[in-house]
Amino acid sequence: VLFSVLGVHAADPLPSWNAGPAKQAILDFVKSTTSPGSENHVPPAERIAVFDNDGTLWSEQPLYFQALFIFDRIKQLAPQHPEWKAQEPFASVLKGDTKTALAGGEHALIEMAMATHAGTTTEEFHQLAMEWISTARHPETGKLLTEMVYQPMLELLTYLRENGFKTYIVSGGGIEFMRPWTERIYGIPPEQVIGSSIKTKYELREGQPVLARLPEMNFIDDKEGKPVGINQHIGRRPIAAFGNSDGDFQMLEWTTAGDGARLGVYIHHDDAKREYAYDRNSHIGKLARGLDESSERGWIVVSMKNNWKTIYP
Amino acid sequence: VLFSVLGVHAADPLPSWNAGPAKQAILDFVKSTTSPGSENHVPPAERIAVFDNDGTLWSEQPLYFQALFIFDRIKQLAPQHPEWKAQEPFASVLKGDTKTALAGGEHALIEMAMATHAGTTTEEFHQLAMEWISTARHPETGKLLTEMVYQPMLELLTYLRENGFKTYIVSGGGIEFMRPWTERIYGIPPEQVIGSSIKTKYELREGQPVLARLPEMNFIDDKEGKPVGINQHIGRRPIAAFGNSDGDFQMLEWTTAGDGARLGVYIHHDDAKREYAYDRNSHIGKLARGLDESSERGWIVVSMKNNWKTIYP
Ligand SMILES: [Ca+2]
Ligand SMILES: [Ca+2]
Repeated sequence: VLFSVLGVHAADPLPSWNAGPAKQAILDFVKSTTSPGSENHVPPAERIAVFDNDGTLWSEQPLYFQALFIFDRIKQLAPQHPEWKAQEPFASVLKGDTKTALAGGEHALIEMAMATHAGTTTEEFHQLAMEWISTARHPETGKLLTEMVYQPMLELLTYLRENGFKTYIVSGGGIEFMRPWTERIYGIPPEQVIGSSIKTKYELREGQPVLARLPEMNFIDDKEGKPVGINQHIGRRPIAAFGNSDGDFQMLEWTTAGDGARLGVYIHHDDAKREYAYDRNSHIGKLARGLDESSERGWIVVSMKNNWKTIYP
Repeated sequence: VLFSVLGVHAADPLPSWNAGPAKQAILDFVKSTTSPGSENHVPPAERIAVFDNDGTLWSEQPLYFQALFIFDRIKQLAPQHPEWKAQEPFASVLKGDTKTALAGGEHALIEMAMATHAGTTTEEFHQLAMEWISTARHPETGKLLTEMVYQPMLELLTYLRENGFKTYIVSGGGIEFMRPWTERIYGIPPEQVIGSSIKTKYELREGQPVLARLPEMNFIDDKEGKPVGINQHIGRRPIAAFGNSDGDFQMLEWTTAGDGARLGVYIHHDDAKREYAYDRNSHIGKLARGLDESSERGWIVVSMKNNWKTIYP
């Protein structure tokens, strides 16, 4: 009471999180790894925290937001590709039937990504992604996509950084799709964004050097690929990992298999009213093995419905 | 005089550099990009400086230091590879004839790197590289290899960082060979080291996750590969680049083609007495096109002989 009256108690660093075991586990982990003299103290240089993006930092239903970008690019590029009118999955996109377009699963999505993400320079693509994200809206909520980031996760990113952590995105999404806006939206600079990528080629165009984007996969940053991408980019094992699907399983496994205090967290989409409810049977953000094994592995499962006071800013 | 008497003048941030146009160009660039109100001011987040390693931050003669590591690994692994006694280039290494072993050029070097760098986990390899570098000595000087770093470049790295720059290594050498010691020697953390790499695979061994190193090239970070690697890892164009050979040409070209103030620097090995003298005709660190075009491109050529007071710490 005395502290409270004097205003000496620290402000809650996670005001959008309800009190409970999930919030407490995060606070305890940060205290334990950063307090001087703590037996689990971790030097600042090793305080690496990795975050999946789709479904962990922002929404991903009814379809990955990058798919919306791909569809818009297909419509934009259609005049240069008359053959698309008769060629799936492009034909369905042009008819507005995105469900049929996506029926081919990951293969169709990669085919469309290649056709729409290659053929530009890296600087042109940066510009395209940045301009698109500044006005793109969600098909159901009508909000800007960048307004559909999770307020509790924004607080968590800030809280970790204030405690000396370096925060990274490790996403199956396109690295060059994310980098133009992650600093503005999440405070995460481009060099701390890891994602899937296509190959690029250095060449001169009218005497000016460019990196041309090629229609060839370079790296798929998903499942077993996430620890590979983390090692390639960071060169150290993170001490905290946050995800929402079985695509993050290996990232959490790799992170929490290290020595000392470790934090593995799954965001569980169980809030049909304020966001979406899906897990085992969803073909976007499927979470089955993660739910089955979190308890035995000591990973935290965050209920969006129960643990978060608000969803969006 | 007054300032000097009062001790108000700033200490020279580059005491091992002789006064002259090269040193002045570096000082002017840093002042121009960091002074508030300067028309060339660059926000701290965009102050990215990239450094080649071999021949730019430490010596590379009479052969790349990583080749010494490879030779030592071949000798260490020989009992498990009886076939190497009759198989080049391994046979020559085992006979101590490294000149013949290297006669096959880059192809032979990559073959030996594969055979000796794969087959471990990333953590085992980290340990191997760290232990090796702690005692490895130069065949001619007898110094520890880590003592053959350039004092003027150490000062430059510190000076740039003190002015808000993020310093990166962008080397043709192995990324996982360098990362275990670059923080201790150069103050450059593993996540700021870019290099050539082999593929890794995530798997479980006795229930523990590991990243297994495979005998398959992932990326060659040389020549046109350097801007590609920079884009993949950093996602922004550097504003300053430092190299010593034609393998750095594209990195300097890419860096200095951007808008605003840019700095491209070649270290020229012209000091046979204190280090080595080589350029156009060397098969390690060949510098020909870079010498021919530096002047027209506005790049600085640093003479180790004339511009550096000392070479090693
Ligand atoms: Ca996800
Ligand atoms: Ca070099």
